[in-house]
Amino acid sequence: MTNLEQIEQRLHELAPSGPDDLSRAMSYALFGGGKRLRPRLVMAAAETFGIDPALALDPACAIEMVHTYSLVHDDLPCMDNDDFRRGRPTVHRVFIEGIAVLTGDALLTEAFRIISESNGLSDHQKVRLITVLAARAGKDGMVGGQAIDILSSDMIVTQELTLQIDQKKTGELFSSSLEFGAIIAHAPEAIQMRLRGIGHQLGFAYQILDDLEDAQNDDKATMLSILGHDASRERLRRTIDEIYHQLSKLPSGAEPIKSILDLIFHTGQVVR
Amino acid sequence: MTNLEQIEQRLHELAPSGPDDLSRAMSYALFGGGKRLRPRLVMAAAETFGIDPALALDPACAIEMVHTYSLVHDDLPCMDNDDFRRGRPTVHRVFIEGIAVLTGDALLTEAFRIISESNGLSDHQKVRLITVLAARAGKDGMVGGQAIDILSSDMIVTQELTLQIDQKKTGELFSSSLEFGAIIAHAPEAIQMRLRGIGHQLGFAYQILDDLEDAQNDDKATMLSILGHDASRERLRRTIDEIYHQLSKLPSGAEPIKSILDLIFHTGQVVR
Repeated sequence: MTNLEQIEQRLHELAPSGPDDLSRAMSYALFGGGKRLRPRLVMAAAETFGIDPALALDPACAIEMVHTYSLVHDDLPCMDNDDFRRGRPTVHRVFIEGIAVLTGDALLTEAFRIISESNGLSDHQKVRLITVLAARAGKDGMVGGQAIDILSSDMIVTQELTLQIDQKKTGELFSSSLEFGAIIAHAPEAIQMRLRGIGHQLGFAYQILDDLEDAQNDDKATMLSILGHDASRERLRRTIDEIYHQLSKLPSGAEPIKSILDLIFHTGQVVR
Repeated sequence: MTNLEQIEQRLHELAPSGPDDLSRAMSYALFGGGKRLRPRLVMAAAETFGIDPALALDPACAIEMVHTYSLVHDDLPCMDNDDFRRGRPTVHRVFIEGIAVLTGDALLTEAFRIISESNGLSDHQKVRLITVLAARAGKDGMVGGQAIDILSSDMIVTQELTLQIDQKKTGELFSSSLEFGAIIAHAPEAIQMRLRGIGHQLGFAYQILDDLEDAQNDDKATMLSILGHDASRERLRRTIDEIYHQLSKLPSGAEPIKSILDLIFHTGQVVR
């Protein structure tokens, strides 16, 4: 089985199967055609450091649950107010809004339970994973980025602020994915910190790419609307080059990680 | 310093102090006149098993953060739609609704970070605390209870269903408070499970008391509206007696825990 197939299978095992609305809404959110980039990065990072990626499977699924919860809450009417995601009605459109809030809450809580019950990891590793995930996903990370984002509609948005939003909203969870691999492989903390930096750049590049691919985003200040199309493309190219350069210094050139990034950035075709 | 004073001081240290809306909203929610029953129960349970309650301080504050997040989300317009709590405007009334959602998300995430970084506990204890908290607060516990609650307005509410809602919504977090004390004190798992049972009864009693004290609750099916006033009072008295009986079998009669329950149930005056 490929890493992706393992992730899909394990998510099905971990997802609640009850007939109640909360269980159904959690499953609806989890199986909505996501590319599973973050859990694949966890497994690829573990592989990079010579560890069987299956050991990273449960923590990988936990990060996917955190990512999924953030999408469910971001789509709420009081946030981005999106009726559709990946061509399907959003959770609060299929179920009631209160259930969408609780679905996010339950997925976030479940992520920590899954890490704490992962097989094959030491208690010390579990505690480190939980510290990293909570720090990256919480008020100084992903949630903090979303807060700045929803409040920034009233502000003059500078390039610096956009960078900060992208880094927190997107970069921090990418960081935690790569850091998870390092922790599971017992890599030194200096390596973990280097991966964190790569994760930030990855979040930045991912957000520019997203802006470039989503031309309707005109009503919102983004790096694209601030820099313009050509400068954004150039900035994206430079950031990707830097990421690949940094990855090359890791064991075996971090080929497993690069192959996931190739999927994201269609390297050699669209961007490079 | 009393346990309560220690809790207040530690919560002030742990709460974010930034000038941004998310930090301010988190602090606003945390310092709203709560009685800190759950963290006091954590410390009292640790004391019952002969452990310095200061060792339980951080996990105790983590449970208070989980309780606080649940109130912020429960008050949202799409849930119970409450404009006031303890005489103050609710978080979504002072800040915008999106910030209220994120405030809950950040408090929940922070709770797990705090446990994972608690001083004086082994990694094994931290992992057990996190497993218990996530299980009690998540889809099979508190969040699941809230989901049944908001969906039950369309249902014929039986005594059994009300009991289930009370047990999950309120009992599970009380359970985790008592269980935390047992885990921190290295008590055997059989003791932890016995405390879990007591927590369930406590949640049930607490909810009946809440119904009896809040006569305006007429539009909602509660144990009070199903059983009537006299039978509810009798049921409450019997449940409290059973809780105290169970507690008496614990070391030193669980006096520290009983003294917290005395505060809740005004024992000897109102109820007994």
